[in-house]
Amino acid sequence: MRVAVVGLGLVGGSVARRLARTHDVAGWDADAATRELAAAAGLTVARDVEDAADGADVAVVATPPAAVPAVLTALSTTDCPVLTDVGSVKGPVLAAAGVAGVAARFVGGHPMAGTERTGFAAADPALLDGAAWVLCVERDTDLSAWVRAAELVTGTGCHVVPCSARAHDEAQARISGLPHLLACALAVAGADGGPLARRLAAGSFRDGTRVAGSRPELIAALCEENSSALARVLDGTVAQLAEAGGALRAGGSVRALATAGHAARRAWSEPAPMVAEMLAAGSGGLRADLLDLGVAGGSVHAVEPDGTLHCRRPGR
Amino acid sequence: MRVAVVGLGLVGGSVARRLARTHDVAGWDADAATRELAAAAGLTVARDVEDAADGADVAVVATPPAAVPAVLTALSTTDCPVLTDVGSVKGPVLAAAGVAGVAARFVGGHPMAGTERTGFAAADPALLDGAAWVLCVERDTDLSAWVRAAELVTGTGCHVVPCSARAHDEAQARISGLPHLLACALAVAGADGGPLARRLAAGSFRDGTRVAGSRPELIAALCEENSSALARVLDGTVAQLAEAGGALRAGGSVRALATAGHAARRAWSEPAPMVAEMLAAGSGGLRADLLDLGVAGGSVHAVEPDGTLHCRRPGR
Repeated sequence: MRVAVVGLGLVGGSVARRLARTHDVAGWDADAATRELAAAAGLTVARDVEDAADGADVAVVATPPAAVPAVLTALSTTDCPVLTDVGSVKGPVLAAAGVAGVAARFVGGHPMAGTERTGFAAADPALLDGAAWVLCVERDTDLSAWVRAAELVTGTGCHVVPCSARAHDEAQARISGLPHLLACALAVAGADGGPLARRLAAGSFRDGTRVAGSRPELIAALCEENSSALARVLDGTVAQLAEAGGALRAGGSVRALATAGHAARRAWSEPAPMVAEMLAAGSGGLRADLLDLGVAGGSVHAVEPDGTLHCRRPGR
Repeated sequence: MRVAVVGLGLVGGSVARRLARTHDVAGWDADAATRELAAAAGLTVARDVEDAADGADVAVVATPPAAVPAVLTALSTTDCPVLTDVGSVKGPVLAAAGVAGVAARFVGGHPMAGTERTGFAAADPALLDGAAWVLCVERDTDLSAWVRAAELVTGTGCHVVPCSARAHDEAQARISGLPHLLACALAVAGADGGPLARRLAAGSFRDGTRVAGSRPELIAALCEENSSALARVLDGTVAQLAEAGGALRAGGSVRALATAGHAARRAWSEPAPMVAEMLAAGSGGLRADLLDLGVAGGSVHAVEPDGTLHCRRPGR
């Protein structure tokens, strides 16, 4: 395949370097210094977005969220038949694809991989090894474009999780936005205890605050782009914590929360064995089958040339 | 020194094994299988609490919290002049020492070290390496007993943090009780997202939920023994999270929380260099000097035979 990667930061750079092992990749970044770093690392660097995407089979948009609408507009003038992205919130990008007139060839994407580092210098093809990578399935998604994107993603060693942008953003609020806000609130509560609390803080505080070490503008963007789903999730967590506080004040117990939390953590860290299944790309029920697979916690692990999808889902 | 260690679980076993390198240690545990394990590991095992403590210079109580009052009552009949403990909440133990009539020789203690494992089989002298170890200074604490306990603790390679039981429990609520409750609430929020959220959860969820993997009864006890301090701290955190939720719902920003959390995490992970100072055990202002040292985030690192205390505190 010919692939364009627009935006060569941590994720875009890692994707471009990983894909360049097996595909013809052209990259571009708005930052001249980044383009130089990428060229020095052996990547083919295009003149502009259009130059990268014209003639490509797939274009991957990996810019900061604020730049995505303009990049999609630029891509709308190219002949590239499949456009995807790597942003951590999918609703706004889906809307931007509609505005840019590229909804018919757009497949929202999100690789669940990252570090606290940023920029092409931190890019590492191994960052993606074995990661879950969401590719969004909407009612109007062109399934041949989706399968083409899935072929590219599984080729990087990632597992494609199919779900709607709405389901992704709801899950993302729970497993990324919420942990970032809790980490920040915990860090603040520790700091409010002054030097003594700081001196005594050990493992539980260290792990609970780790992601508060990410850049504040990235944390804020992650939360604010997904504001409505995150606000709903936060309501539930605030109610649960307020209930625990009330119980403590009344001489009651927090055993129910501790037990539920322990069970949930165990279930996550010891997942059920996966069971293999196949889906045929041309089948009439593919859209529903893919959404069912994702909701069940399953994923696509390989795409055959004839479009057959090799999948796995948790056994019961 | 002759040292008694009553309770040979994870912490008591680690303490006994570490002290046995340089002191004459007699251990005891209510559980016969634990006593056998300890004896097989080369520890001297006493017949009962009194047998362990009679003639000892210091007795360390390392039983589960519920057993502490009875052990302190048993110790009250012995001639051991310095009694200390390793419990994670200090107010209730201080009260129990008063009820048992041993307040004059009791120094509350808490080594800030642990793992999710339990029992003598998990005991490891290295668990204590370089850890902060609180020794409580109250208005009526016998300072010669305190210095004796500090001599023992610094001899294990730990740094003694002096503070009141009240200050300890307030800090403990912030840096241990709160992270455990937040981890449980986050794990539950993730589980409420079903298999899709579980499939997508990665680093921020993993770290944010780690301590929810501890045994629920331990988490509940940690929180409930420290209920009033923890309820107060939780109020502040709940208010902060509710405010963030309101901002997200109103199209506002969570940048202030992200910035404050980031700064707090950085300040914790990059502490100020420590400055050395000395305190004389016989000085009239020792009680106030110790409390000042602890509040400032400082600690005692060595005790000379004449009682001189080698201390360090964060530079300004």
